[in-house]
This record gives sequence, structure tokens and C-alpha cells, in this order.
Amino acid sequence: MNDYYGNYIRRYEAKTGKSRRLYSRSEKLFPGGISHNIRYFEPYPFFVNAARGKSLSDVDGNRYTDYWMGHWALILGHSPAPVASALARQVKNGTLYGVVNDVSVELAEAIQKLMPRAEMMRFSSTGSEATMYAVRLARAKTGRRVIAKAIGGWHGFNTTLMQTVNFPFEAEEGPGLVQDEGQYVESVPFNDLEASLKVLETIKDDLACVIIEPVLGGAGCVPPAKGYLEGLQEFCKKNGALFILDEIVTGFRLSLHGAQGTYGLEPDLFTLGKICGGGMPIGVVCGDKDIMSLADPVSIREKEARCAIGGGTFSANPATMVAGLATLDFLRKNERKVYGKVDRLGEMARKGLAKIFADAGIPCRVTGINSIFLTHFVKEGTKDVENATDVATSDRGKLVKYHMALMAEHGVFFLPTKMGAMSYAHDEADVKKLLSATEKIASSGLLK
Amino acid sequence: MNDYYGNYIRRYEAKTGKSRRLYSRSEKLFPGGISHNIRYFEPYPFFVNAARGKSLSDVDGNRYTDYWMGHWALILGHSPAPVASALARQVKNGTLYGVVNDVSVELAEAIQKLMPRAEMMRFSSTGSEATMYAVRLARAKTGRRVIAKAIGGWHGFNTTLMQTVNFPFEAEEGPGLVQDEGQYVESVPFNDLEASLKVLETIKDDLACVIIEPVLGGAGCVPPAKGYLEGLQEFCKKNGALFILDEIVTGFRLSLHGAQGTYGLEPDLFTLGKICGGGMPIGVVCGDKDIMSLADPVSIREKEARCAIGGGTFSANPATMVAGLATLDFLRKNERKVYGKVDRLGEMARKGLAKIFADAGIPCRVTGINSIFLTHFVKEGTKDVENATDVATSDRGKLVKYHMALMAEHGVFFLPTKMGAMSYAHDEADVKKLLSATEKIASSGLLK
Repeated sequence: MNDYYGNYIRRYEAKTGKSRRLYSRSEKLFPGGISHNIRYFEPYPFFVNAARGKSLSDVDGNRYTDYWMGHWALILGHSPAPVASALARQVKNGTLYGVVNDVSVELAEAIQKLMPRAEMMRFSSTGSEATMYAVRLARAKTGRRVIAKAIGGWHGFNTTLMQTVNFPFEAEEGPGLVQDEGQYVESVPFNDLEASLKVLETIKDDLACVIIEPVLGGAGCVPPAKGYLEGLQEFCKKNGALFILDEIVTGFRLSLHGAQGTYGLEPDLFTLGKICGGGMPIGVVCGDKDIMSLADPVSIREKEARCAIGGGTFSANPATMVAGLATLDFLRKNERKVYGKVDRLGEMARKGLAKIFADAGIPCRVTGINSIFLTHFVKEGTKDVENATDVATSDRGKLVKYHMALMAEHGVFFLPTKMGAMSYAHDEADVKKLLSATEKIASSGLLK
Repeated sequence: MNDYYGNYIRRYEAKTGKSRRLYSRSEKLFPGGISHNIRYFEPYPFFVNAARGKSLSDVDGNRYTDYWMGHWALILGHSPAPVASALARQVKNGTLYGVVNDVSVELAEAIQKLMPRAEMMRFSSTGSEATMYAVRLARAKTGRRVIAKAIGGWHGFNTTLMQTVNFPFEAEEGPGLVQDEGQYVESVPFNDLEASLKVLETIKDDLACVIIEPVLGGAGCVPPAKGYLEGLQEFCKKNGALFILDEIVTGFRLSLHGAQGTYGLEPDLFTLGKICGGGMPIGVVCGDKDIMSLADPVSIREKEARCAIGGGTFSANPATMVAGLATLDFLRKNERKVYGKVDRLGEMARKGLAKIFADAGIPCRVTGINSIFLTHFVKEGTKDVENATDVATSDRGKLVKYHMALMAEHGVFFLPTKMGAMSYAHDEADVKKLLSATEKIASSGLLK
């Protein structure tokens, strides 16, 4: 810990006394004091008690401009008016009917209109569930067992896909995952088509699907190289495997039509989550009618013939449904305004940050696309950040320091080391503030 | 289809025209027209657009007294005032902070106070996730692989526990589940301690845990025989396996202290969900500090040494937290009033229904405990309904008819074939109505 970092930590501690006391209660209750590992950061996370628009407010009365935005789900900001008022009405009229409702039909039709490859879909309550159901459907459809994913690819906490998630990627993801379950997952290096196809070639006879995030999200905001996703898709189509696009982050983020719209992809199945729930819990598995129909309990009465996917108690609950529908309605009616703005702010941040660090002589790459972005402190002479290993082997400690300095001194919040996202609630003044704060930090000696 | 049933179906169709049209849109969008298999019933489910207190209202303007109660989660009824007003405030101040919040600490402390075996816990967004994390923790703690569950035991849609769920229990639960994954799950016959211990004995060296619902819920509302759960627990303690109680249904339902309070059990881990989320998506894995700590990302920095459990994007979100806290607060402050009432109504229903069918000469058993109950049309001379096989081999078609008749003619809703639950919003007049409706149906010839 150099002096600069120590100073920022002390400043953070000085303004977050109530959070410190709450954290000491919290660490007695939860392993690590949190309910999601990435929410912990040193010396302790601040405790939020309200969030509106672009801002988080903590229990000590600090306010932060938020670039984490609810795990990137909140493209309209925290509690945007149309969503908040739809929810305020709904919570008085039932949050969990437990039976079918009319709004789920409307939300599904809205999704289908924007992403016509969603011929059929099923709502669940989390992304982890949606990806689990997607690969289960792929195994059911193909009668094959092996699932291929990208090294560093993140598809939630389900047992099947909890493989090669964290660096060092070749090591086990910890005790409790039975090794026999991992034997049917193969990983390919993101953005290296030749090497990826080489791996796939060796397993093609038992390959049920490739599941991939179009932009590596959790692994560090890495957009796809030209032709990479198309190449994987082509291999799948040629070899009788399904091509599954995990659009939980990119759906309604890269565009109203998702990454499949941006890149003209034709996934057999894809998953959604985050944005389409309007800030409420959601996951969606969507795709080809013939594949989705394998889960139809009405036409397939024998359980041995039907692919058993949920659902769940909270699936398609009316609170999530109205929040999702209000969000998609707003996005559809204001497509140019919203995406024009968040994309412009994203570009402004990427260019501005890259220039500041270049001018300061700090080796750095800023990755991203549209409204998402992340800074990587790379080794001198590094060409580009192209995959999860490039991200993981950059100077993550420096990134923690940078994000802490923004938090401690400038009221700007990135979840340390995680990708940032613009929302419609941000504006140019926010980005200017981010850039001027970054300029000060870059010249402070912290990152030398 | 006898004439009586046909008549009820026609009456149902006559009053649910808008639902029929919505269902024809819905079945184009979702496999089976639903996002949870059990929500489909013949000829099509009605579509709800509001729910308050004890009632569901559908799009055709029909109103039903609801005994399904949001998969049994809504012990205070739909949108009870204290929960609705907490939520109405919260939805304007953020539904997904994406970082830690103060209310999650309060909710965790409230749970711990009522269930002191929750030395530590982690919030997820669904029960399926909570049980998946519980068995992963058990494997991590013990270094063993085999998980034992009850035949018919329901622990959600996760890949590991999706075994022996539906009748015929020995058959596979459908394509897409890799057989290698099933080899580490063994099933024991609920309520037959001798036979269960015999099975466990054969696998005890590699037995990581027994996970069990104290009352079989989805499989048909079967309370435990005296000594059964205690016997399993004793076997686990003796043989170095963990005893996991799945209290997703029974927690805060059987009593404020769950089934572990009722039966004086000492599970190493247990899961919660439903009621403690106040109608919002939740799952909780709780238990022994030493076991939960295996997932601590702060003290265990090496991923290979840490048990990787979520969390998830929506875990501990402030909307769920405030709804859960408002619910537990109300239950705690009104413990006698609430549990006194719902237990009394449950008893009144069980006794009343059993008498009506006995008087009508229709062989029937009514199972249940406290505020939950279910009717089983059994074969003449059947002694008792003691396990999932007894439930599955009773006349389920007759149960569908009975539940449809209640729905079509009397405005009383049970999700066909599923257990019913009382809420604090129900009262004696509701049960009287249920009983008098049942009397009419029993004498109508439908169930002969």
C-alpha cells in the first residue's frame, strides 16, 4: 500500500463511519458480510439506503454518481418515473399472483417484437436459472452432453456453467462442485477463432451447444473481434450443435435488438435478464419454437419425454412484469434519444479516459462498446485487451486503487474492477466530472 | 369426462372468455402457455390482473377466494397493508442498488433472532438457488459427493436436485439432465425410517448430506411421522453427513420458528424462501457458521479453497428486503393472532372436509398441519397418506375435478391438485363457504 492509496482509504473511512459499523454487523451475519462476492471491496463497502436516477446515497449521507447501475441492469437509472409509478400501483394489487397474468403476455410480445428470434420464451427469476435452462434444453434437443463456453465467460452460479470463471481459469472453481459435472464443460479462448474451433473440433460429436456472451461482461468488458461470434455460430450450425447467445447483459443494452441485432447473429436460443426486468428479478430463456417446445407440459404429458425447466415460484410475477414492460415501452418510444445518449456518453468516457492516461504516461487500455466501458492498466507495450486472460493479468490492484480514489475523493462509484455502464439518467456533466476526477488521480502518483 | 365435469368446464369457459383469448396468445409465446408447469390446468388457466387480501381477480371480472396464495408464500394475504406501503416507498428509492444495503442486515438479524441456527446466511433470489447452494456447501464441507433426498421431495429446478420429483419417481426427469449428474443423488422413501436408513447405510461413506422438506409440500402436503426427521438427523450426525432442512415452505408457515422449532430439529444448514420475502423473490441458505464460512470471499482469497455460491444480481435487493422485513415484523408483533387464526382455519378446513366426504361415502383423506391442507381421493380401505407415492397413486383426476368445480361454480381457487394454505386475510366465513361448496360438490355426483 503506497501512501497515496492509504490516504484515499483513510478518506473513505472518515466519511463512512456508519457503514463501517453496519459492516461489522453484516460480517457476523453473512460470509464476507455480503450476499454476492463481488459486492465486497476493501476496506468495507458503503451501505446504500436510497438510489435515484444516476445516484446512490449511503447511510452516512454521501452521494455517489453510480456507474455500476445495478449490475448494469438500470439503463434508465434508478427508479425511473415510468417504472416507479407502474410498480407503485402494482405493489398494492399483488406482487405474486402465483397464477398466469395478462402483463406477462404483453411483456413477452414486446420482447418478441424487438427480438423476433424469441419465437417462444420462458420467464424465470434470475439469469443463473435462464442459462441453466438454456443448456438443459440444448442437451435435450441434441441428445448430446458437452457444453462449450468461453474462458472467463460468466453465466451465473448454476452448477453446470460454474467453470473457468475466475483466474487462474484452468483451476477448479472451488470445493463443492463435483468433478464429474465439470467433465462435460469445455472452454474456448474468447476472440481466438482458430484456437476455439480447434477445441470444438475435438468434441464436436458430443457437443450440445456453445453458450457465449457476445461481449465478455463480468470478465472485463471485452467486445467480440470481427467474425469471432459468426465463426462459432457457423461451426455450431455445421455440426448439429446449438448456438446460444447469453444476452443477459447485452440485451437492450447494445441496442433495442440486443447484440444479435448489432452483429446480425442467429442464435438458436438466447437468454435475457437485467434490463428487461426493469430493476426487478428476471431471467428469460428464448428461442426457436421447436427447441422451446421440448419443455411444453401440455403437449408432452410423459415426464420422461419432456425437458424439465422452471419457472419457479416468482417467475412472471406481476411486479417484475410491469417494471419490465414499462422499461421496454420507454425504450421503444425513445429509442434514438436513449441509445443516442448512452452510446455518446460511453464513447466520451472511453476516449476521454484513454487520452488522460496516455497523457499521464500510464499504460492503459479502455475497452467497451456502446454504453459500457472499463479501464485496464496493462503492461507497457501491450497491444490490446482481447480476452479474459488479458484482463485478469492486467494490474487489477491498480484498478482497485483508481476506483477507490474515485469513490473516496470524488463521489464517483464503480464497483471496484468492474465494468461501468451509462444510463439515460447520466449526462455530459457527469462524464466531465469523471474525466476531471480521473485527471487528478492520474497526476497524483497513485497509479505510478 | 362425465357429464358433471363437462358441465363445470362449460361453466368455467362461459365466465372466462377473455382469459381464453389471452391463453391463445400465451400458448404461442410460452411452451404450454405458462412460465411454470404447475400453473397450467384444463381447459386453460384464468388470467389474473389484481390480487388483494384473500382474493384473486381475473380479467373477466371474476373473483376467487385464493387458497394457493402465491405458492403458499403469502401468509398475510395479497399485498397486506404494511408490506404494500413499505414497497410503495421503496420502489421510488431504488429496487436494485447492486451494492450492500442496511435493510438486508436488519432482515438477517430478524431471521436469526427467530431461528438461531441461522448463525450465518446468504440471500439469493429463488429457492432453487438456495437449495443448490446448500448442497454445494455440504459437498464442500464434507468432501463427499452423494446427496440424499426424499422420493417426491421438491427442492426446485436446479440440476442436482431435479431427481425423483414426479411420479413414476424411478423414471428419469426428462431429457437434458445428464445422467452422470444423477448418479450422486439417492432417494429415500419419506416417513419410512427403517427403509430410509437402509438406503443411507449403503452410501454413508460418500454421503455429503440429507436434504429434506419437513412436510412434503409439492408432493402433496404430507407431515412427518413421529421420529422420522429425528432419525434422519441422528444418522447424519453419526456418519459425518450434514442434515439440511428445506424450510422454503415451512419456514414462518408452521410457526414463527419454522419446522425446526416445531419438531426441535438441529439442522446443520437450512433453506428459506417464500414467506420471508414478503411476496418478493427470495431464497436464503442459512446455518452453521463454520460451514457458511467456506463461502467467505474475504477470508478465503484462493478460489480453489472457497465454495463458490451466489448471490446473483438481484440478491438482497432492497425491494425484497423491505417486503420481507415488514412481513417478519408483523408476524413477530402479532404472533399469537396470526398463527392462532391460520392454524384454527386450517384445522377447521381439514376436519370439515374430512367429515363431508366421509358423510358422502367418498373415500378421502385430508392431510396437513397448521395452516396447510390437501384432500386426497384414495382407494376404499386406504389407511393413510404417508408419502409421495400414496399421494401420486390416489385419484388425482378426481382431485382435478373437485378443484375445478370449486373454481367454476363457487369462486374458490385451489391450484388443481396442489395443497392449500390459509392466510391471515382469510376468516371463518371463507372456510364455511369452502365447506358448503364442497358439500354441494360431494352430493352432485361429480366425485362418484
